[in-house]
Amino acid sequence: MSDYLQRIGRLQERLKAERDHGVVLAGTDQMRYLTGWREGGHERFVGLLVPASGDPTFLVPAMNAEQARTTPAGISQVVGWDDSAGWHDAARRIMASWQGEGAVFVDDEMHAVHLLSLQSLFPQLRFVPAGALMARMREVKTSEELVAMERAARLIDEVYEDVAEQLVAGITESQAADLILGAISLRGSRPSFSPLVCFGENAAQPHHHTGDRRLKCGDVVIIDIGCVANGYASDITRTIAYGEPGDADVRAIYAIVFQAHMAAREMAGPGVSGEAVDNAARGVIGTAGYAEQFLHRTGHGIGLSVHEPPNIVQGNRDPLKPGMCFSIEPGIYLSGRFGVRIENIVTVTDGGVRSLNREPDAVIRVIPAR
Amino acid sequence: MSDYLQRIGRLQERLKAERDHGVVLAGTDQMRYLTGWREGGHERFVGLLVPASGDPTFLVPAMNAEQARTTPAGISQVVGWDDSAGWHDAARRIMASWQGEGAVFVDDEMHAVHLLSLQSLFPQLRFVPAGALMARMREVKTSEELVAMERAARLIDEVYEDVAEQLVAGITESQAADLILGAISLRGSRPSFSPLVCFGENAAQPHHHTGDRRLKCGDVVIIDIGCVANGYASDITRTIAYGEPGDADVRAIYAIVFQAHMAAREMAGPGVSGEAVDNAARGVIGTAGYAEQFLHRTGHGIGLSVHEPPNIVQGNRDPLKPGMCFSIEPGIYLSGRFGVRIENIVTVTDGGVRSLNREPDAVIRVIPAR
Repeated sequence: MSDYLQRIGRLQERLKAERDHGVVLAGTDQMRYLTGWREGGHERFVGLLVPASGDPTFLVPAMNAEQARTTPAGISQVVGWDDSAGWHDAARRIMASWQGEGAVFVDDEMHAVHLLSLQSLFPQLRFVPAGALMARMREVKTSEELVAMERAARLIDEVYEDVAEQLVAGITESQAADLILGAISLRGSRPSFSPLVCFGENAAQPHHHTGDRRLKCGDVVIIDIGCVANGYASDITRTIAYGEPGDADVRAIYAIVFQAHMAAREMAGPGVSGEAVDNAARGVIGTAGYAEQFLHRTGHGIGLSVHEPPNIVQGNRDPLKPGMCFSIEPGIYLSGRFGVRIENIVTVTDGGVRSLNREPDAVIRVIPAR
Repeated sequence: MSDYLQRIGRLQERLKAERDHGVVLAGTDQMRYLTGWREGGHERFVGLLVPASGDPTFLVPAMNAEQARTTPAGISQVVGWDDSAGWHDAARRIMASWQGEGAVFVDDEMHAVHLLSLQSLFPQLRFVPAGALMARMREVKTSEELVAMERAARLIDEVYEDVAEQLVAGITESQAADLILGAISLRGSRPSFSPLVCFGENAAQPHHHTGDRRLKCGDVVIIDIGCVANGYASDITRTIAYGEPGDADVRAIYAIVFQAHMAAREMAGPGVSGEAVDNAARGVIGTAGYAEQFLHRTGHGIGLSVHEPPNIVQGNRDPLKPGMCFSIEPGIYLSGRFGVRIENIVTVTDGGVRSLNREPDAVIRVIPAR
């Protein structure tokens, strides 16, 4: 039996145990986890319908039916719907027996318009998010998954080293992103998300859109990048300076963020909560007086998806388990001036955590200006 | 008053006329249409809340608050929520007055998990898809929008011409896609979607994922690509042969698809329905005996989004109006052998339609094999 069918079997056991009807996944990484295939479908409905008992069914646009029939999961029930007839009648047929008490889990990332249709088609069913249910299956990685994640981590470490040396005054953020894409492609990989490159004051926005700002001597540079190996994602952030930093506080802020990063790493381990790890980083930054400038959680889980559970955030009291993988990425953002973020991916071991990425520099790296 | 505030004003007029409460958009092209800004937010909630009366509010992750404050729309009410507190309380506050009869429109592409939260927070409200409401505002393009679309069309025509000549035996689909990305970047543009390149039997899958298949002499090649100008998308498909086609039916199938493409173009114009245009293409292909091999609708609207209303599909009886823009892209797919699709973007004029792209070849183009 393929890994995929085993995963579907485990999911069905959980559904049966809780007397729930089934799961409706969209063409996301949830579907990829169960079948090896993802397909956004543009605005069209792409669904994997897994009942608590019996065979799962793909309900996909007619033009994707051939792909659905040939996934590694080998799911034989494939219903292709065409643009003329739509998918509602087919869904009604496939889910006809999903009746009575119990929940139907829907993919967190399903488009609202499709969920609203499902709710209209089945007014008696109770739809709830599938995120937590799927996370319990996905968040502890197997050794095979870890091998892929380590490989993705090593590749992106190399890409960072390559590209840092190529920065030169006058280059735009977008051009730097193109260099990164080239270095990823050269290694036979692809990006796990669009490279984020922030020069100077743009580094003060954690999710700045890479743009036309040109690199100047004295700029802080944030590079937040990731790639894929065997379907699994990497994600690192490095903060460096191009020439001696123009802002006198850069070195001190970097030192605080580095200390916060390491404090979170020290705290993390089996049985510790995501909240406790977040507190460790937040404590260092708060003590230094920058609590308000740490604008986001300390980290997010990673695997098939760049962002997945477990979150390293206030309110997450679940104990971490060996084999979980997540980012540690505290940051301080000084609006209009610069920002610093340092991110590695770690995996929980029996005694703590182990970094999948090379260690970040303890002191901000200065690229000689040319 | 900016264009954006005028758009928001027009939306509010419609809401008031129908006595609806308001609209909750996610960080999609719908939000971009109203504010000039889009932001997926990863799994975080990004919302633009537009009440029927009064000022709109951005409810966004704290780390995106600065971006929300500086959109071209100049929306002053920005609520940043942080990862610790979440967004639910803030949404409850902002939407406290949305009560009684009437609907709340939600972005079609909002993630299901966020819609389920909204439904829990406001059990008395009736949530419906915002798609049709927003389409009525967006589907007829202004002359300014048309200028951007024509520019995007011209750029992608050039990219196609550039790349077709560079194909050479042994190149992979992914490498061809990289060439396309390079040619798009060279023109100062960016892709409107990932380039779709299908060699040989892969061309039989309308939404094949560009992969490692290598180009061979005799292959049919489908190239489906688009880029962006001033925020607006282009999208063309060309089917060509690398060397004399190995399958004896390629020329005949190409001729049928070309005829279907032109029949749809002839039919389209103001007052004609999307369904009638679809029928025109479908009639040609059906008469030729390939009805079952035409796996999708004839076309989709395009603008800020690559896919948006109006759809050229069975069931769409709404009359086309001057200024609408959509694709005409019939195709025939012979499983395991090859496929042919020919796509131009057209805009409705007073008397018919005008193509934004160069005309496709009437006879399949054969690239000399090297």
